[in-house]
Amino acid sequence: MTNKNLRIGVIGAGRIGIVHSGSVNDTAGAELAVIVDAIEESAAKLAGKYGVAHTTNVEDIFTKGDVDAIIVGSPTPTHVDLISRAIDAGIHVLCEKPVDLDINRALSIKSKVSNSKTNVSIAFNRRYDPNFAAVHARVKAGEIGNLEQLVLTSRDPGEPPRAYIAVSGGIFRDQVIHDFDIARFFVGDIAEVSTFGGNLFSKDIEAENDFDTAITNLRSKDGKLVSVINSRHSSYGYDQRIEAFGSKGMLKIDNIADTTVRSYTSDHTEQRDPYMNFFLERYAASYRKELALFIESINTGKQLNPTYEDGCQALIIADAATESAKTGKVVTLK
Amino acid sequence: MTNKNLRIGVIGAGRIGIVHSGSVNDTAGAELAVIVDAIEESAAKLAGKYGVAHTTNVEDIFTKGDVDAIIVGSPTPTHVDLISRAIDAGIHVLCEKPVDLDINRALSIKSKVSNSKTNVSIAFNRRYDPNFAAVHARVKAGEIGNLEQLVLTSRDPGEPPRAYIAVSGGIFRDQVIHDFDIARFFVGDIAEVSTFGGNLFSKDIEAENDFDTAITNLRSKDGKLVSVINSRHSSYGYDQRIEAFGSKGMLKIDNIADTTVRSYTSDHTEQRDPYMNFFLERYAASYRKELALFIESINTGKQLNPTYEDGCQALIIADAATESAKTGKVVTLK
Amino acid sequence: MTNKNLRIGVIGAGRIGIVHSGSVNDTAGAELAVIVDAIEESAAKLAGKYGVAHTTNVEDIFTKGDVDAIIVGSPTPTHVDLISRAIDAGIHVLCEKPVDLDINRALSIKSKVSNSKTNVSIAFNRRYDPNFAAVHARVKAGEIGNLEQLVLTSRDPGEPPRAYIAVSGGIFRDQVIHDFDIARFFVGDIAEVSTFGGNLFSKDIEAENDFDTAITNLRSKDGKLVSVINSRHSSYGYDQRIEAFGSKGMLKIDNIADTTVRSYTSDHTEQRDPYMNFFLERYAASYRKELALFIESINTGKQLNPTYEDGCQALIIADAATESAKTGKVVTLK
Amino acid sequence: MTNKNLRIGVIGAGRIGIVHSGSVNDTAGAELAVIVDAIEESAAKLAGKYGVAHTTNVEDIFTKGDVDAIIVGSPTPTHVDLISRAIDAGIHVLCEKPVDLDINRALSIKSKVSNSKTNVSIAFNRRYDPNFAAVHARVKAGEIGNLEQLVLTSRDPGEPPRAYIAVSGGIFRDQVIHDFDIARFFVGDIAEVSTFGGNLFSKDIEAENDFDTAITNLRSKDGKLVSVINSRHSSYGYDQRIEAFGSKGMLKIDNIADTTVRSYTSDHTEQRDPYMNFFLERYAASYRKELALFIESINTGKQLNPTYEDGCQALIIADAATESAKTGKVVTLK
Repeated sequence: MTNKNLRIGVIGAGRIGIVHSGSVNDTAGAELAVIVDAIEESAAKLAGKYGVAHTTNVEDIFTKGDVDAIIVGSPTPTHVDLISRAIDAGIHVLCEKPVDLDINRALSIKSKVSNSKTNVSIAFNRRYDPNFAAVHARVKAGEIGNLEQLVLTSRDPGEPPRAYIAVSGGIFRDQVIHDFDIARFFVGDIAEVSTFGGNLFSKDIEAENDFDTAITNLRSKDGKLVSVINSRHSSYGYDQRIEAFGSKGMLKIDNIADTTVRSYTSDHTEQRDPYMNFFLERYAASYRKELALFIESINTGKQLNPTYEDGCQALIIADAATESAKTGKVVTLK
Repeated sequence: MTNKNLRIGVIGAGRIGIVHSGSVNDTAGAELAVIVDAIEESAAKLAGKYGVAHTTNVEDIFTKGDVDAIIVGSPTPTHVDLISRAIDAGIHVLCEKPVDLDINRALSIKSKVSNSKTNVSIAFNRRYDPNFAAVHARVKAGEIGNLEQLVLTSRDPGEPPRAYIAVSGGIFRDQVIHDFDIARFFVGDIAEVSTFGGNLFSKDIEAENDFDTAITNLRSKDGKLVSVINSRHSSYGYDQRIEAFGSKGMLKIDNIADTTVRSYTSDHTEQRDPYMNFFLERYAASYRKELALFIESINTGKQLNPTYEDGCQALIIADAATESAKTGKVVTLK
Repeated sequence: MTNKNLRIGVIGAGRIGIVHSGSVNDTAGAELAVIVDAIEESAAKLAGKYGVAHTTNVEDIFTKGDVDAIIVGSPTPTHVDLISRAIDAGIHVLCEKPVDLDINRALSIKSKVSNSKTNVSIAFNRRYDPNFAAVHARVKAGEIGNLEQLVLTSRDPGEPPRAYIAVSGGIFRDQVIHDFDIARFFVGDIAEVSTFGGNLFSKDIEAENDFDTAITNLRSKDGKLVSVINSRHSSYGYDQRIEAFGSKGMLKIDNIADTTVRSYTSDHTEQRDPYMNFFLERYAASYRKELALFIESINTGKQLNPTYEDGCQALIIADAATESAKTGKVVTLK
Repeated sequence: MTNKNLRIGVIGAGRIGIVHSGSVNDTAGAELAVIVDAIEESAAKLAGKYGVAHTTNVEDIFTKGDVDAIIVGSPTPTHVDLISRAIDAGIHVLCEKPVDLDINRALSIKSKVSNSKTNVSIAFNRRYDPNFAAVHARVKAGEIGNLEQLVLTSRDPGEPPRAYIAVSGGIFRDQVIHDFDIARFFVGDIAEVSTFGGNLFSKDIEAENDFDTAITNLRSKDGKLVSVINSRHSSYGYDQRIEAFGSKGMLKIDNIADTTVRSYTSDHTEQRDPYMNFFLERYAASYRKELALFIESINTGKQLNPTYEDGCQALIIADAATESAKTGKVVTLK
């Protein structure tokens, strides 16, 4: 494809690091250079799968000169620092969401990122899911006239472990931030946020002072209305839907099951299986597309993925939703 | 609506007579005049529901001068004679299918029917079901280009009693005749018939030398191909579908449940209830439309319902299917 | 059915009066006694259709002694007074929503209604739509475990005339009040309301200081969350959906088209026609059910329809939504 | 995965050879050894993509000792000979359908294949499509009780070039043979075949004395009934469906589009895009599964793919369908 492969280091050998490593391995023009994880066993296991180097010392990335780009899937508190150091080292970076749990810390490197000579991208992969992407393209092409309302439903298959909740930053910064990014993708910047959070099923989540259920109303700066509907569990599988309503029509996506089989018996008809249960399966295509755009961005100098600014804006909405849910007030954004 | 109501006698107070009586009662321009049934209790019960006269003597219809039209829902062996006498008496007649179990007996009054001054209609109600009718209208309007293939699925909710099977004339003259009429409605006259009959679940039906399952291939005189798929039972409710395939597209209909509710749990998604189980519910609208067309035919002198000739042609195909299933040969029609 | 028919007067010969008159005419045990409308031509036309008396003087209802019950479909400002006088006259009353545009006026007869010897019912017909009713029954039966979230979508086919908007009381008291009643039907009394209103397409509606689009979050007293999504137009027909999400599953309803036909061509597949466009068709069954329950309530002394209190509570939520949309604040209900 | 990769030669660098080469390249435990095609340019191009050897001389396969297995995607007349020589050379073989156009020639090596020490598999990939496979597994598990009827619909997106038709062996040996294999997969051996062939749209196909449209009825040896519905074109994309009907229920599969997006406008609702248009996309997963089973068969000595006997039996049904369509008679198989 290109004369020389892009050498990519993956930082974080957890669930998302495994996904990104697989994508790199499958992608022409890229090669996995090194896996970094503070837990050596994790780093070694993932590196071994692809026959590449591993290290527990992230310094190696910036000092050894053997990577062109990094994908950051390490814990959130490390993100800002890694982005900053990658820029200094002339290394391209694709960083997982959220950029940080503290918006001030995130904004502290905003101008540095703006002036970066290397690519900085934020991994809001849902934009590249073929279904969400098709709705977006068709809305932009005018198929439904003026977009007036957006309804986003996002329900996780099951609640995460309490330890994860404890460091997640809460449902809005951890889960709903994807919907907030999708909202911005469709309607642009957000002016007002009103959220009702609920504790309807999980004692653990309540004990962490977090919500297991939420509904959020957003108004965009140009007046479009967005309803966001979330839950930390869903008995029937991963529930990920969008409905774009406009002056001339509506576009919606259905969920995805492993097969198209439908069953009919004396107690039901048209029955399908539960939906795909896990984000890695459900969004597999989107991770590959995200990586392809990252590589194309590096090769062409264009910014094709969501920007650091997109990462900050989604976090600002997540902060506002958190505040609204906790205070019971509508929050206005500047 | 009209100055004077059309006075209608219903012959046969069984299941189908009850449906037609209800339709007459609900229809402007018509009134129920008398119910005829050899079993006085049945006649009296149905007549009582609408406060009209009843009789066990069918002669009354032809001699008393108080009906303008009859709807014949009495046993099949009475049909030809009743049609013939209605013509003689100047009475319009809407007669249930089949016209007879013996095609020669049916054909014996064919020219008499042709010369009738009163309306003679055969009750192939399925043509007037809103779904079948919409597919027909759209095919005729050219929406799918040249019609090439027709697939008809017709599965009854459950097998009839053995006593009914014994006098039914067999699955092809009793059940599949509706599909054969629909086939002619779409593709015109039929040239070739090949049927495989099966005995896959009912000892009773087998004992009556009849089939519980059948698949039939038809070729129309102008070469279109029709697949007809039948069963005498269906665990998930009444299964009634059509698929019209043409050079530019396809039109299909789905079955109908009582509600549009779908359920989603840990073991399924998109599940609907079983389909409407009974032809009287499923085809309620078609019976009313059929009656309205009968009345309009009488008022205008146009023939808007299927003709006696249609009744004979469907029977001829049913006979051919029966022969094909029994002999294992393809049957060619003239 | 009963020894004596219930004699029903219909007040208001407009669109909704026409529907109710048809239901009365079709219902065993009831008879249309008189049509009342200030515009004699309207009253005479509707009365003529059924061969019953008409009057322009509503006093006749209360003085002539020839009605047992009234159905009130006259303009909203007349509702409270007619209910009050019906109670005084010992006449049962089924009154259209909203009970009034002024909650204080509505509440002024609350105790009088509580002590009424005759039946007072409010016409929130949507509860009796077979689809909504089935979801409600299945949720109450525990099919989806604990109900956690409710999503209600209600988009009218097209905006009403400006003159109607001007006296409607605004989108929340006129249109969304149905959703607020359905919300209470499922989750009980409401504690908090947050609404974003929008002016996204109609200059007329904006000129009347009303909204053409709205999204509302509700929280019930026991913590369940409800999203309500509304528009005054919908290109693809009347959009009326409910999604009930619980700990063990989800129940949803689809919209309804006239047929089940689906088309497939070189530019699309699985295409259905636009949805039924008008509330009278879409909710025909619900109006008949509502009337049947009204008659049964009168005959048995049970209150089977929504109560006057239900009418007041839905209006209180509509007032709160109006306030929230206009002030940009979350409104807490007592 | 295994100590040593299975070295696979791909014979035929056409459309299907390209698919198989891609699958081999993506599959752990296998490696592409050489590409063979009589047209050097084709062989070189495909070999170049994966950096492997190529040759125009199929002798190299059998003499050079550098392949363990071959995948045969060369023209049909070469199949029997290549299978025979592979057996002699101790090379495993996965051969495309049909095994030959002449059943006698196919049968001539039947006992040799039976006694082969190496694996001989026939590439009826449709059995491994996740949707067909799921229906099969669920039928075998008894979910629908006794299987009574099978309905197979298979319509190609568009007619092949006339040159292809000329050497294809006709629609039954080329296209419908897949359905005949699926029929056997579900209902076992076939006893009777009745086919109507049609010439409804293609002058080219008619000029080749072939059919563009066909419907076939099959009866299995144990009495189950199968309807097979075929066309050489389909305006809305590749139409591949199965409906399995049994005593306790029905299982069906839907077609597949690239996304799950549905559109709603003033002239339609629930509209999806045309279906995937090409067998390589539609059945991509099935080709990979077929290869995985071939490798597993070789490693374990089990026969996991369809056998040479399956290939012959499907051809025998295709011959019977051809005869039935041409003679207008039902054909009985031994």
